Amino acid sequence: MYDIEMYRLGATRTGIRELFEYGVRQAAKIGKENVYDYSIGNPSVPAPEGVKEAIKELLEGDPVALHGYSPASGDGAAKAAIAEDLAKRTGDPIKAENIYFTCGAAPAVLGTIRALRQDENTEIILLAPFFPEYTMYMQACNVKGVIVPPDTENFQLDLAALEQRISPRTQGIIVNSPNNPSGVVLSRGTLEAMAEILRKKSAEYGHPIFIISDEPYRELVYDGAEVPYIPAIYNNTIICYSWSKSLSLPGERIGYFCVPPCVDDSENVYKAIQGAMRVLGHVCAPTMMQKVAAKCVGIKPDLTVYEQNRKTLYEALTSYGYRCIKPQGAFYMLIQSPNGDDNEFSEMAKLKNLLIVPGTGFGCPGFLRLSTCVDLAMVQRSLPAFKALIEECK
Amino acid sequence: MYDIEMYRLGATRTGIRELFEYGVRQAAKIGKENVYDYSIGNPSVPAPEGVKEAIKELLEGDPVALHGYSPASGDGAAKAAIAEDLAKRTGDPIKAENIYFTCGAAPAVLGTIRALRQDENTEIILLAPFFPEYTMYMQACNVKGVIVPPDTENFQLDLAALEQRISPRTQGIIVNSPNNPSGVVLSRGTLEAMAEILRKKSAEYGHPIFIISDEPYRELVYDGAEVPYIPAIYNNTIICYSWSKSLSLPGERIGYFCVPPCVDDSENVYKAIQGAMRVLGHVCAPTMMQKVAAKCVGIKPDLTVYEQNRKTLYEALTSYGYRCIKPQGAFYMLIQSPNGDDNEFSEMAKLKNLLIVPGTGFGCPGFLRLSTCVDLAMVQRSLPAFKALIEECK
Repeated sequence: MYDIEMYRLGATRTGIRELFEYGVRQAAKIGKENVYDYSIGNPSVPAPEGVKEAIKELLEGDPVALHGYSPASGDGAAKAAIAEDLAKRTGDPIKAENIYFTCGAAPAVLGTIRALRQDENTEIILLAPFFPEYTMYMQACNVKGVIVPPDTENFQLDLAALEQRISPRTQGIIVNSPNNPSGVVLSRGTLEAMAEILRKKSAEYGHPIFIISDEPYRELVYDGAEVPYIPAIYNNTIICYSWSKSLSLPGERIGYFCVPPCVDDSENVYKAIQGAMRVLGHVCAPTMMQKVAAKCVGIKPDLTVYEQNRKTLYEALTSYGYRCIKPQGAFYMLIQSPNGDDNEFSEMAKLKNLLIVPGTGFGCPGFLRLSTCVDLAMVQRSLPAFKALIEECK
Repeated sequence: MYDIEMYRLGATRTGIRELFEYGVRQAAKIGKENVYDYSIGNPSVPAPEGVKEAIKELLEGDPVALHGYSPASGDGAAKAAIAEDLAKRTGDPIKAENIYFTCGAAPAVLGTIRALRQDENTEIILLAPFFPEYTMYMQACNVKGVIVPPDTENFQLDLAALEQRISPRTQGIIVNSPNNPSGVVLSRGTLEAMAEILRKKSAEYGHPIFIISDEPYRELVYDGAEVPYIPAIYNNTIICYSWSKSLSLPGERIGYFCVPPCVDDSENVYKAIQGAMRVLGHVCAPTMMQKVAAKCVGIKPDLTVYEQNRKTLYEALTSYGYRCIKPQGAFYMLIQSPNGDDNEFSEMAKLKNLLIVPGTGFGCPGFLRLSTCVDLAMVQRSLPAFKALIEECK
């Protein structure tokens, strides 16, 4: 009657969403102020005022042009504005024809994997810790996800483990830096060493291994951390971006993929991803939001709230004896489970109405993720629970 | 290096788009006023004023709530508003949980087909004439499209041909009424006879055969034509809708699928399509537009322009000797090729800068499609070319 695999995908809630929904029910029972919900990565900072102004301005123009179909790849002028900004920031001569507007980063990454797929034995490398939805992407594209275990020391990359996992069937590797769930930014040194391995293996196997750079958090960095522009380090890099976090527009589904000119056979790779976008039901990205994104070029997100949360949590939790991985970007923080078991510790925390996500789903057992896109007041109210919890583990 | 099938999908422009782009180039050469472009179905009527008002109102609210993620199926209150309106109009007790907001009708139809798929031998029936993109949907879902040839007499349905084409592998049939490209509305009698056949065959093969009702044009009807609510005639109907045409928002990618309660195992069918939506990269439909659609419930499209075009074209072309299929809905009209060959006639028309799309791509050779969502002044300027063309064929 219907496909059972699709049914399972539709009927199963992710662990994150389950925890979040538990929090909503619990808040209804005991009061919102008594639930400390660190489960979900929904920006808590409003969209910059420039977004509202851009929409209002656009509304005064011709509605047929504003809301009409754009070409599948996006409005030409909007693509040009994004390309120009990227070129200016990176020094890479990105042009409008390298940019393709998508309904957020998710379809951009999915479309890229689908385009790179050779057959059901194609392998895509995932670097733990990783966004759990990536494993669904593997299923959706019918390829094999090959996991490189986390470097739990400094959350850069176990280069030997990576090299070992590249096979003649490897078509791509997903890089997500700043990272969800760790908030860690891959250093230039790490990226250069990774590029070296990928170049060697591409030559050995006679085909390019692509980096799929999923970078929705690239503008969310702290302490002046550098987020290196990956195509300048490794040419066969496809960029997948979203304004979900940088402009706090996650519901509006606006992002892009970019196949820079330095990619081997760049124009045709772009066309292959374009074909995959059709298969995903893409017609065009929301047209008004394409133009909003173009108008908001140069607007920086206000990171004050995220920075305060990060600082407060890191300092307090470290002082209680937690091992925290210091995030340089995004709005997440990993802590090591004081009792060694992330699932068990998450359950213990739940009893104190503290909702933190086990790392196992991120390919990172023994750790837990805190989403720090929350209210500072909630952070402060939650600290005694963290303290009590680690004491229970002693 | 990349998937050649995806590359072909991305590198190939549809015949419609090719003709449209030819028109743009030609307009640059000889002046826009000398090109009569009937190629593309892009609404020429602006979005109702209510859309602008709704956006402005929403912008005054909390931006975090406005632009934040909604649940994958959509904002609860917006779903409830759409469900209530549907229930009121149809008498069917549709609830919020039957509605799932999508990025337009395309992913809704694709997701439904994907959810109904059993294996690569699954068959989906297409009723000619049909939207050419449906054949891409078959490829995208790796199912077989089985075509019922057109009833070229009155563009209803050749029931015997339909019955003959249903097999034990038939999972669904796409119904698109009002129809692109003919503008014809399937009558209640036709739908009842179709339902009778589907019930008989469902019983014979021991599984439901679903109607996938792709109905973005349902509010665009003329002369008081009735568009019957299909689930009331045949219970196993899944509705795929888009506000692209009714609110002139095609670029904003906002639509829904609805699995009415009368569908067998309704709740689980909904979940299976929900799973398929994840596979398509759906996270949520654009949140602000979900709320705009909910606020615009009850707003009717202004059909004056389309009606005038339809009347002017139908009367003039009929008087010149063309056989025109009188459209009762949408913004298209089919004409029979005066020389019997639609491709050849389209080329002849092109020489007169008249751009009309051959019916072959719609599964309807010997006919041509005119998109009537154009300027009335252009229609009037184009009439001498139509007259001269048919005279050349005599």
